[in-house]
Amino acid sequence: MRLSIDAMGGDRGPAAVVAGMARSARKNPDIDFILHGPAEELGRLVARRKQLADRVEIRDASDVVTMEDKPSQVVRHGKETSMWSALDAVRAGDAEVCVSCGNTGALMALSMMRLRKLPGVNRPAIAVLWPSRNPQGFNVMLDVGADIRADEKDLLQYALMGASYARNGMGLERPRIGLLNVGTEEHKGRSELKAAHELISEAAQNANFDFVGFVEGGDIPGERCDVIVTDGFTGNVALKTGEGTASLIGDFLREAFKFSPLSRFAAVLALTSLRRLQKRIDPRRVNGGVFLGLNGPVVKSHGSADAMGVSAAIKLAYQLAASGFQGKIAARVASAVSLAQDAAERGTGNV
Amino acid sequence: MRLSIDAMGGDRGPAAVVAGMARSARKNPDIDFILHGPAEELGRLVARRKQLADRVEIRDASDVVTMEDKPSQVVRHGKETSMWSALDAVRAGDAEVCVSCGNTGALMALSMMRLRKLPGVNRPAIAVLWPSRNPQGFNVMLDVGADIRADEKDLLQYALMGASYARNGMGLERPRIGLLNVGTEEHKGRSELKAAHELISEAAQNANFDFVGFVEGGDIPGERCDVIVTDGFTGNVALKTGEGTASLIGDFLREAFKFSPLSRFAAVLALTSLRRLQKRIDPRRVNGGVFLGLNGPVVKSHGSADAMGVSAAIKLAYQLAASGFQGKIAARVASAVSLAQDAAERGTGNV
Repeated sequence: MRLSIDAMGGDRGPAAVVAGMARSARKNPDIDFILHGPAEELGRLVARRKQLADRVEIRDASDVVTMEDKPSQVVRHGKETSMWSALDAVRAGDAEVCVSCGNTGALMALSMMRLRKLPGVNRPAIAVLWPSRNPQGFNVMLDVGADIRADEKDLLQYALMGASYARNGMGLERPRIGLLNVGTEEHKGRSELKAAHELISEAAQNANFDFVGFVEGGDIPGERCDVIVTDGFTGNVALKTGEGTASLIGDFLREAFKFSPLSRFAAVLALTSLRRLQKRIDPRRVNGGVFLGLNGPVVKSHGSADAMGVSAAIKLAYQLAASGFQGKIAARVASAVSLAQDAAERGTGNV
Repeated sequence: MRLSIDAMGGDRGPAAVVAGMARSARKNPDIDFILHGPAEELGRLVARRKQLADRVEIRDASDVVTMEDKPSQVVRHGKETSMWSALDAVRAGDAEVCVSCGNTGALMALSMMRLRKLPGVNRPAIAVLWPSRNPQGFNVMLDVGADIRADEKDLLQYALMGASYARNGMGLERPRIGLLNVGTEEHKGRSELKAAHELISEAAQNANFDFVGFVEGGDIPGERCDVIVTDGFTGNVALKTGEGTASLIGDFLREAFKFSPLSRFAAVLALTSLRRLQKRIDPRRVNGGVFLGLNGPVVKSHGSADAMGVSAAIKLAYQLAASGFQGKIAARVASAVSLAQDAAERGTGNV
């Protein structure tokens, strides 16, 4: 199994990426890497890690996509970047999945250009895993920011792609899908959500998932469903609000335990418990947004990911490749396209 | 100072409301109450609390708005309900603020009908306080669900009303306002957000607040701004996502400390620290969404509020009344209306 890794563009530079690869290589003997970036620098970094010996092919790329670069510029002038090279390895079939810590907007724009959208997909989506009360420990939410708009057909495709992801990434045979909305009856008024509710209901039988209907923000970490479907604007706000809240509580917790000598003593005794908690909510453990709806999966790691975060993104990429996810999602979307078109046409006829 | 309290419609019934009133009455000798609901039952509940002696006027209302009632029905047929009676006491000038634990949609619809919107306000908003890293401990977010739509002029009014609330409710002389958006440049594309950015920028000087521009979900509990402005759909999802995440972490924390006998022992020692944490993130302490943009403030308490939650909502209502908030916000919005209209007209001219 070969993964294509963009070494550049993350906040911690290529050293953190190579450290993450070494961590993954130690745990999993089945992974090989194609690594993209300035060959000389990468060669030195890789040579220092004996776990990586004979498992890394380096492809030289002199240019780097920065966090400030505009996606449109990268698409036009980014041919020499490590990000472009990393995507092209998947395009050429040399690697199964691409992993990058770089600029999200640029990565999405380049992915759409180099890998192309799956037939029948209008808008690709970014899916993330979210700690939850469900037995699998995580829920899937999409879209979290590939596109700020989504009409009812896009939302249906998100449901289909999210169900496929939950089935292959989390082993849920019949995932439960929820459509994000606000609470009161009176507010269930956005027309595209009503239309999407109908389309997803109709698709549920054939597509082998359960549709639980509208869900609320509180259900994102909840147990009512496994997959939360929403537009990229709302999903992005929800993701960052959740991360911000978790980080705030973490800081408050630390402050609470630093308050007095006694509480500092209690903290020492409570250390194992606190570590157990941290492990469950540590965002590095579930690092990686997956771009769905393209010819080839792309895993976007957090820009600030350290070795542990990069390794988690690599693990996710490996799992997706090992499950044969790409072929399954393509088949699922293709078979659903005609279904969706039928439904949409019928829907229009009814109104 | 007289507050108008709807005794009915909350999940825990009138006993929790009266217990909350007693709690507030004990702490604050300046509050009197007008209490609305079935007179006989309420009379018995009040008689049991000696703190409430001679401080409560009961107004009989035989009917109750339930959580299932549709707002439109309540507006047409709700004349005998305790909610209607509670709002009419503010309308008649008998009380300064109305507090209710009832159905949010019905309370907003009835409030708009009985109290009417402030001149110049198109859509009223619900504002909540959110635990944050700022020195005042909380940020204001609005709208969290009065209306799912908001155009640029509505967002400007939310900014003005939110600034007024932060000034009078939290004592911030020059609040910092942020407009909620998603991260990457490419996504800053919703046209109403761009237009609102311009309108709020222009209003900042005259309205005595600082505009920090676009903020992200992570800034809602952060320290970049004091007031977060957004539409009711996004605000509602963010609020519930944050609450859900906090509740999930709380449960994980409890589980972590129940894991082994040693961790249970550590928990006992850590109790004070954990209580200190809980106090900072306990949603009951900041219970109360405030309806802004009406002739008379309305405080919406959580439907599930217990005595402590009801008491927090009463405290908030008292603070708003004591600060002369209503007069100030009316003046602020009125003076801004012409400003906004000018700006909007200029804006249209420019495009």
